[in-house]
Amino acid sequence: MNNTPDAAALRAAVVAQRELAASLFDQLRHDGFDDPGVTRDPYGPGEQRAHASIAAAAERLGLGLTRDASANLYMTRSGQDRAAPAVIIGSHLDSVPHGGNFDGAAGVVAGLVALAALQRLGLQPANDITVMAIRAEESIWFQVSYIGSRGALGALPEGAMDVTRVDSGRTLTEHIAACGGDPEALRAGKRFLDPSRLRAYLELHIEQAPSLVEAGRAVGICTGIPGNFRYPHAVIEGSHDHVGLPRRFRRDAAIAGAEFAMGLDRIWEEHETRGVPMAATLGRFHTDTETHGLTIVPGRFHFSLDVRAYDEAVLAALERQVDALIAGIEQRRGVHFERGATARAAVGLVDPAIKAALLDGAAEVGTPVLELGSPASHDAAAFAAAGVPMGMIFIRNENGSHNPREAMTLDDFLAGTAVLTHWLWQSCV
Amino acid sequence: MNNTPDAAALRAAVVAQRELAASLFDQLRHDGFDDPGVTRDPYGPGEQRAHASIAAAAERLGLGLTRDASANLYMTRSGQDRAAPAVIIGSHLDSVPHGGNFDGAAGVVAGLVALAALQRLGLQPANDITVMAIRAEESIWFQVSYIGSRGALGALPEGAMDVTRVDSGRTLTEHIAACGGDPEALRAGKRFLDPSRLRAYLELHIEQAPSLVEAGRAVGICTGIPGNFRYPHAVIEGSHDHVGLPRRFRRDAAIAGAEFAMGLDRIWEEHETRGVPMAATLGRFHTDTETHGLTIVPGRFHFSLDVRAYDEAVLAALERQVDALIAGIEQRRGVHFERGATARAAVGLVDPAIKAALLDGAAEVGTPVLELGSPASHDAAAFAAAGVPMGMIFIRNENGSHNPREAMTLDDFLAGTAVLTHWLWQSCV
Repeated sequence: MNNTPDAAALRAAVVAQRELAASLFDQLRHDGFDDPGVTRDPYGPGEQRAHASIAAAAERLGLGLTRDASANLYMTRSGQDRAAPAVIIGSHLDSVPHGGNFDGAAGVVAGLVALAALQRLGLQPANDITVMAIRAEESIWFQVSYIGSRGALGALPEGAMDVTRVDSGRTLTEHIAACGGDPEALRAGKRFLDPSRLRAYLELHIEQAPSLVEAGRAVGICTGIPGNFRYPHAVIEGSHDHVGLPRRFRRDAAIAGAEFAMGLDRIWEEHETRGVPMAATLGRFHTDTETHGLTIVPGRFHFSLDVRAYDEAVLAALERQVDALIAGIEQRRGVHFERGATARAAVGLVDPAIKAALLDGAAEVGTPVLELGSPASHDAAAFAAAGVPMGMIFIRNENGSHNPREAMTLDDFLAGTAVLTHWLWQSCV
Repeated sequence: MNNTPDAAALRAAVVAQRELAASLFDQLRHDGFDDPGVTRDPYGPGEQRAHASIAAAAERLGLGLTRDASANLYMTRSGQDRAAPAVIIGSHLDSVPHGGNFDGAAGVVAGLVALAALQRLGLQPANDITVMAIRAEESIWFQVSYIGSRGALGALPEGAMDVTRVDSGRTLTEHIAACGGDPEALRAGKRFLDPSRLRAYLELHIEQAPSLVEAGRAVGICTGIPGNFRYPHAVIEGSHDHVGLPRRFRRDAAIAGAEFAMGLDRIWEEHETRGVPMAATLGRFHTDTETHGLTIVPGRFHFSLDVRAYDEAVLAALERQVDALIAGIEQRRGVHFERGATARAAVGLVDPAIKAALLDGAAEVGTPVLELGSPASHDAAAFAAAGVPMGMIFIRNENGSHNPREAMTLDDFLAGTAVLTHWLWQSCV
């Protein structure tokens, strides 16, 4: 802390950016409008329009603009020492199809609001502060998580450049090239960000569960981001048979899927009872649409699985439980599970010093907070995995995310952005 | 029994039609070829080609041809008394998509073979014997069962003429008109067959379960056809949410579907233990393909349900159990089941005298048989519901039906057809 404004003045400077925040959210909603909700498809027209609007706003704020091979956008307020390790305030601009306006975008808008507030106070930071608008965080499209952030860090998983977007059928390589990126540099594993040259990564995001609503708090401070293992494209093979086939002869792939789902639900319930946080989701869970019908016993069943937890040991134990569950169902029901490729993401550990500073700062700016694990995945986990000290701030949000009914108030958003700005003021000014 | 040949001569006359049977099955396989398997789509090109081939064969056998408003085909050997109540030997020529060649068609071929055998023996029946090639029995296409037979009997359910075929999107009215039928006559409820003018309806069909294979018998004599209740288009409404949402907040429509499936499986297992035959099938069972994804908790789930039993009281009790199961899941999981329209088909009772005569005849022609309930639905049930005395003969069949792997040997087929022919000889000659 090397400057004169007090916490109240700092909070007032953030609240004074209310119109900036409102106009940016309105512009983004307009850019992504796809009734119901918004669609900012990664490396497609929806995300492109959002990037153009955010870049224009950053130029109006006088920030320096850069883009990398992944077509991520960096908007930088220069520090007094440009060679000093920089701080990144990041989040993603893409959305799920027909999603909400705030998921991801709120973190980018918060970064711009924080820089505008510091500027209003006449404060130049000691080091560069960069707002990063990240590409393609939502794994629903390419079935790969953290594409933009892992691309920037040179940490894309094997084969990622060749995956196809579920709707377009075009490869990630083609999509990135079409948006002005450099897929060959990514394929060569070149990184744009050197983790050793980064001081911290901070991300503000709407909460995607109603824990803050339940607790009556506007802002949450993140205690960790779950790792996961995923089967994006699993299939159960049984036998297609006539609707009249007696039970003892059936090898019903859908009933096998149902038993798997209920087994996972029991495992989760048991973890819940023991107070061990996890989640298991069968997002796609369906009979084969080519062959299913009213009078056919389903012989093939498709599903996707996402299992997440905050502790690598818990994740590993869950993977063993899923193995045992599948083996039992295969044996009992004469079916075979083809899991397909397993995708994995590491647990994202929050830097203890950043978390402590955020909690202290929240108290100073007068915002009561809740400490909570992020049930969702975030780009912040990719930075943590690369060794960059990481912290996150959550904003209360009605009705969850990934749907058009998500709802965050501007008051809550500004309260969380004040905590973020306070941290920048404490740490970089 | 008023004629001279003995049972052995009768069986020999049937076996002598081996080439006729083989060539008709080959022709039908060729007509319907749709790798893998055959597709004889009702009121579409596949079924039309089969009708044309069977009509040509009947003309070569010198049978009289007629068609009705449903475009069913009647192939008649005139009786000595043309005013006497007729016997119908029927089955359907349509198939499921990529189905087997014998499901339905075997019964039509058996009728032609039986008439050819009686002719070879120089026997003219006392009354008309009509082979009926029935339209649109497979309910997978229009989600309505027994369209051809119920159309002939003036017993189509309310609204049937306006249902659409799941693949073409065209109405039954349009499909029937395109195949030379008279949808307006059907809409007016006009019947072509007067049940009081029919002496009996017999149907030969491949078995659709491996009970005969298991018992080592070539032929089965039917003891009853199950009635059913069906939800062709049911939906579970929950809440689409983010993959990170804790369990206590979820209203997961897919997990609700899984709990429903496992509940049905337990109900069935319990009936199995008590020796009460039934079946429950969730043929379509799937997350919403428009909105599902790896990282979205499913908020909508679709399924079709077919529950069948041989006893109306058992069916009624099952419907109450399903109601209770749904109510419990709705309460536990915060979801809502929209069952949509419920379709029902009555239990098809076999005429005791016909069954007894078929069992006696099988013994006379030297074919050991198994008495068994038809787990599947058949047009015969529509005739039974209309008050026509009904009987059925099943032929051993490997690998079930409604799939390209169904397999019936010609030896087994001819053994069953000999039982059918024996009945005609006993009853009509």
